[in-house]
Amino acid sequence: MSSTLTTSSTLLSQRDLRFLLEEWLEIGSLTERCRYTDQSLEEYRDILRLAEQLAAVKFAPHNREADRVEPQLKAGSVVLLEEVKQALDAFAEAGFLGATLAHTVGGMQLPVVVGSASFAWFCAANVGTANYAFLTMTAARMLIRHGSPEQVERWVRPMVEGRYLGTMCLSEPQAGSSLADILTRAEPQADGSYRLVGTKMWISGGDHELSENIVHLVLAKIPGGPAGVKGISLFIVPRLLVDDAGQPLRRNDVVLSGVNHKMGQRGTVNTVLNFGEGVHSAGPKRGAVGYLIGLPHRGLAYMFDMMNEARILTGLAAAALGYTAYLKACRYARERPQGRPLGVRAPIRGQVPIIKHADVKRMLLAQKSFVEGSLALVLYCARLADDAESDESAEARSRAKLLLDLLTPIAKSWPSLWCLEANSLAIQVHGGYGYSRDYDVEQHYRDNRLNLIHEGTHGIQALDLLGRKAPMNEGAAASALFEEVDRTVREGRALGGQMAAFADMLGAYVSRLREVTAILNAERDRALALANATIYLEVCGHLVVAWLWLQQFILAADREGVFYAGKRQAARYFFRYELPRIGPQLDLLAALDRTTLEMEADWF
Amino acid sequence: MSSTLTTSSTLLSQRDLRFLLEEWLEIGSLTERCRYTDQSLEEYRDILRLAEQLAAVKFAPHNREADRVEPQLKAGSVVLLEEVKQALDAFAEAGFLGATLAHTVGGMQLPVVVGSASFAWFCAANVGTANYAFLTMTAARMLIRHGSPEQVERWVRPMVEGRYLGTMCLSEPQAGSSLADILTRAEPQADGSYRLVGTKMWISGGDHELSENIVHLVLAKIPGGPAGVKGISLFIVPRLLVDDAGQPLRRNDVVLSGVNHKMGQRGTVNTVLNFGEGVHSAGPKRGAVGYLIGLPHRGLAYMFDMMNEARILTGLAAAALGYTAYLKACRYARERPQGRPLGVRAPIRGQVPIIKHADVKRMLLAQKSFVEGSLALVLYCARLADDAESDESAEARSRAKLLLDLLTPIAKSWPSLWCLEANSLAIQVHGGYGYSRDYDVEQHYRDNRLNLIHEGTHGIQALDLLGRKAPMNEGAAASALFEEVDRTVREGRALGGQMAAFADMLGAYVSRLREVTAILNAERDRALALANATIYLEVCGHLVVAWLWLQQFILAADREGVFYAGKRQAARYFFRYELPRIGPQLDLLAALDRTTLEMEADWF
Repeated sequence: MSSTLTTSSTLLSQRDLRFLLEEWLEIGSLTERCRYTDQSLEEYRDILRLAEQLAAVKFAPHNREADRVEPQLKAGSVVLLEEVKQALDAFAEAGFLGATLAHTVGGMQLPVVVGSASFAWFCAANVGTANYAFLTMTAARMLIRHGSPEQVERWVRPMVEGRYLGTMCLSEPQAGSSLADILTRAEPQADGSYRLVGTKMWISGGDHELSENIVHLVLAKIPGGPAGVKGISLFIVPRLLVDDAGQPLRRNDVVLSGVNHKMGQRGTVNTVLNFGEGVHSAGPKRGAVGYLIGLPHRGLAYMFDMMNEARILTGLAAAALGYTAYLKACRYARERPQGRPLGVRAPIRGQVPIIKHADVKRMLLAQKSFVEGSLALVLYCARLADDAESDESAEARSRAKLLLDLLTPIAKSWPSLWCLEANSLAIQVHGGYGYSRDYDVEQHYRDNRLNLIHEGTHGIQALDLLGRKAPMNEGAAASALFEEVDRTVREGRALGGQMAAFADMLGAYVSRLREVTAILNAERDRALALANATIYLEVCGHLVVAWLWLQQFILAADREGVFYAGKRQAARYFFRYELPRIGPQLDLLAALDRTTLEMEADWF
Repeated sequence: MSSTLTTSSTLLSQRDLRFLLEEWLEIGSLTERCRYTDQSLEEYRDILRLAEQLAAVKFAPHNREADRVEPQLKAGSVVLLEEVKQALDAFAEAGFLGATLAHTVGGMQLPVVVGSASFAWFCAANVGTANYAFLTMTAARMLIRHGSPEQVERWVRPMVEGRYLGTMCLSEPQAGSSLADILTRAEPQADGSYRLVGTKMWISGGDHELSENIVHLVLAKIPGGPAGVKGISLFIVPRLLVDDAGQPLRRNDVVLSGVNHKMGQRGTVNTVLNFGEGVHSAGPKRGAVGYLIGLPHRGLAYMFDMMNEARILTGLAAAALGYTAYLKACRYARERPQGRPLGVRAPIRGQVPIIKHADVKRMLLAQKSFVEGSLALVLYCARLADDAESDESAEARSRAKLLLDLLTPIAKSWPSLWCLEANSLAIQVHGGYGYSRDYDVEQHYRDNRLNLIHEGTHGIQALDLLGRKAPMNEGAAASALFEEVDRTVREGRALGGQMAAFADMLGAYVSRLREVTAILNAERDRALALANATIYLEVCGHLVVAWLWLQQFILAADREGVFYAGKRQAARYFFRYELPRIGPQLDLLAALDRTTLEMEADWF
């Protein structure tokens, strides 16, 4: 298969992926592990090429059209573009739904980092269609971890084959960030199953005709259980009930009660689902039939297992959307003549392509530093997930797990924030054309805006990081991260020159962050300590990405060619224009600023 | 008329406008000037109440619908919602098209600051519809300044009455920011008129059936004139040719050749116009009939006169869009229960409205500081426009003109940047609901994204500020601004306490900006001096808005009540969270950073 498709050149960069995966994360070394012993680096490259090609041929072409022609409700059914199903069928046929799942359930058993990099192509090409796969893949992994062998056999296998697709049903109209307040109830039945009654909101892929069946993973409360989040259980609630042989019996009582119309990611149908309204009920018992996953009242922990993976993938999608828009902005900037070098008056000389103007280069460098930094961050996390799962050393596995836990809110939020900014800059590079719907960049911007909201809002990520992850195990995760950063700082210092200067700068900020973290962890007034959690999240994000840029800078230091020159310049940009932002933010955090706490509601 | 309409409470704040206009800008004192001698403060209040009511009743109700149902081309005509015409007719009937124009042309001769504040209501309610008025008002003012008495009589009077609407035709498909490269030609005719041939792009309101006629103001080159921007002339090119009595004769050869589909501001039809294609030509001579404004080859200066006003109004529109979304976010945050105070476990107590959470307050305070700061900035500029025009002292007039020239790129760009951020935060406060099209905030965000692009992009504003305005008259404008800021700093210091601390902070930053400005002005390598012009623009913006916040803080210092408490807290927020951003940016500027200059196109 050709790896030089025209369209793919503006989805992601093959060259950068090779750098990140092979030169930096050294995925080749994974094949030495037991889990991947039958695999090779060449195989990983083939997988990535296949992903690129499928993304370009099957996903990208209907991205605009799926935005324009939103999912429609016709006679109670969700009607999507035909290309959506064709794309997902091709995705499934190529084995990508089971990319990282074990051979035993029909998966390819690839490292998470390879699966993530592959999936980035699809997000860049068409996030609206890729979402159906995203939800199915994360649901399947969660079921494998926490479901019974029978559940895995019955539900996961058809998901890997693409015959069933999955959803996550957490939010309700009155309960979004506050899952403690969900009202959906699950009544136990004599046969061991449950009957669910309630309403779920914002359910992506909640109803459609793309697959034989839909596997809803639903949070609900079993009456009599503990109050709040400790009384939440997790259920499989299929759209169609099936017999032991997997043959469909009848519709379960899950009813599509509405479709939400969004600003972006319109290709993904977003629904309100009613469980147990009696529309499809058979018999006197009310409720949708559900099957408990794992133990009662432990549902939130299982769901968070899935959610954590979904958060990394959200960061990945944000990075991919940033990346494709950046490449399109580069292409536009090379092709668009406008203006002249400063000091040259019209019409003495012809116009230059706008990529020659300093401010356009600034906007492109900013994008490059954000999108390549984001992709590095999520792939680093994916590699940590591999280490946590398959490293031969137990100590290395637990350290990787610790780092991954800490970095998850950052990997979700930083790309969401800064690749949105990258998308805005991509529009800006296009000028008026960027604001028109004849170019893709405005859609990427609209699509990307969701990533700060779903899978836990930006503010929720901040509370997770500062309130839970930073202090956990007496700060063990934060210490582990700081040690890693210090190691790179030492490495950079040893190289001298500009590298040492950037390393010193990073070293100084990480010392400061250590102090600030200690101050915040020690503060007894938790409301005060957490008042500026979002600022803390953003500081940590910038610092972590600067650290990853320093690693890239070190790798690129002595290498020839435009690719490495670009890496070095993007690293310089990040250290000079971006990293210093955190200085005043660290001061604010250290001061335990009370401005927001002291604001009264009626002063607004 | 009632001034407490339900909808208006989420458009703008009457209370804040009264504070800004009466307590701060003291518009009451304008009535002492000759030009406004027949007017009163009570009259200004009535005008503002009328604007609020018309905006709420005639403009706001079709804002969403005009976004959903874009302008359509049917049989060569642009079809808009009926409500657009009804709104504009009501606007004209109330006299707002001539709000600030002289009595002699049928205007109300109001101060610009009153006209601007009135117009803010319409922008907040429905920027897509308000744009038709915006273009007409700025065109009329320009014609009054630079057109002949006959031109004013023939074109401006019907514009004031709303019978004709106006456009600005600058850009062409190949020439956006670089007007030196326009290709439209104007051939002089024996009767003194011209025939124009060319294509104009991104023309808002370029064709429609809203008015009897459309007055296009078109930049074109007269053959034989100087090359580049010095050979640009400005023409009136009406859609319909009229006789001496103003009766329509026939279609001029201006042809709608396409409609652009945009991300936002969809209610404003955006067109490609062909001049002189021969479609409507009468006779053998090719070209659309045009009438020269002022002198040949001086067109750009006239257009910039209009453009400068349009830039302030763009800032006003950005502020208004930020403001309405902020008010909607406040309303949502008061009404939406979710979560509990930190430390209180569910379900011991009921949920609190999200406005009680520190991070939500942070997002609302940020919005408040951006939108009220922006509105203050544009109204301050409007007041400068009044001073430049009607102050009794010649020295005061020229000083006001100087400050206005300097502040114009800031007034255009700062609200466009930060009220877009405010809109993003308004979405964030709404959570998933904010991303759905059932709430207004996502539309405000999409609408506002245009403001960084049109009427001179963000980067163009930066070059205008640093390349032209800061060094002009040996830095006289910048010195004047710094003196004004110093005056407020001294006033703040004299008050002691927190006020003095903030004043010191501002004083330190303004000293630093003075130094940096001197370094940049002194740099002989202009490409290097201007490489980070956009950073300079953003620094100046933050500093100027901090200065205006300090003024508001001083005014609110000893006042009782929630309104003043809110002002004080927003000022604190701005000084603690926002102003310190410029520290690292000033360092970057002082270092004459070369990162962007040294980036090569093929490194991307």
